[in-house]
Amino acid sequence: MSTNLYDQAYVLEKAVRRSTEFSHLKQMFEAVANDPAARDLFDEFRNVQLQLQHKQMEGLHITDDEVMKAQEIANRVQQHHKVAKLMDAEQRMSMIIAELNKIILKPLDDLYGPSFG
Amino acid sequence: MSTNLYDQAYVLEKAVRRSTEFSHLKQMFEAVANDPAARDLFDEFRNVQLQLQHKQMEGLHITDDEVMKAQEIANRVQQHHKVAKLMDAEQRMSMIIAELNKIILKPLDDLYGPSFG
Ligand SMILES: [Ca+2]
Ligand SMILES: [Ca+2]
Repeated sequence: MSTNLYDQAYVLEKAVRRSTEFSHLKQMFEAVANDPAARDLFDEFRNVQLQLQHKQMEGLHITDDEVMKAQEIANRVQQHHKVAKLMDAEQRMSMIIAELNKIILKPLDDLYGPSFG
Repeated sequence: MSTNLYDQAYVLEKAVRRSTEFSHLKQMFEAVANDPAARDLFDEFRNVQLQLQHKQMEGLHITDDEVMKAQEIANRVQQHHKVAKLMDAEQRMSMIIAELNKIILKPLDDLYGPSFG
């Protein structure tokens, strides 16, 4: 890969790191990390999410019990101030990453556009 | 999203567009696009790939017939100079995009590292 591409990627990486959105995410993350009850709930929620995602990707059946358990944890998350705020910050950050990706992939979109295939 | 993030993403987008790897991909793409037989083979290969990916994601069974058909097209692709070169160029570009993504996501990796969960 050319030096210029690396250099520009690192400039963007610094911009991500210094963005208000990332700073906010970091603060929310640390608030949860430093609160054992919040941290347990966050870990539990994440684990259930990953399990369901994994089953979905493998094409395995998700039971009613699993759906109910996920729903129950999601409710507890929404009621927990710190965890809910972290989830919001994560969601905003994900959207930003998706937007950055979309911009960076524009050259490929232009190439593989409606003119071909 | 902050203006700086947008601006830096567009700087990186320009660097991608001007990279030797993207220029090469574009050339290989156009060589295929302008050769009806190559283009048909490329489209056929792409369609079979997408079909199989889709079935895999849905957890559907892939038949022996489908595997053989995919193999047969892959062989024809490898024997077709222009299409094979386009595939190589695509693979190199994918690796670069993956590397760029890894760099940009470093702040998140640092945050969600071994210290948590
Ligand atoms: Ca197309
Ligand atoms: Ca961790």
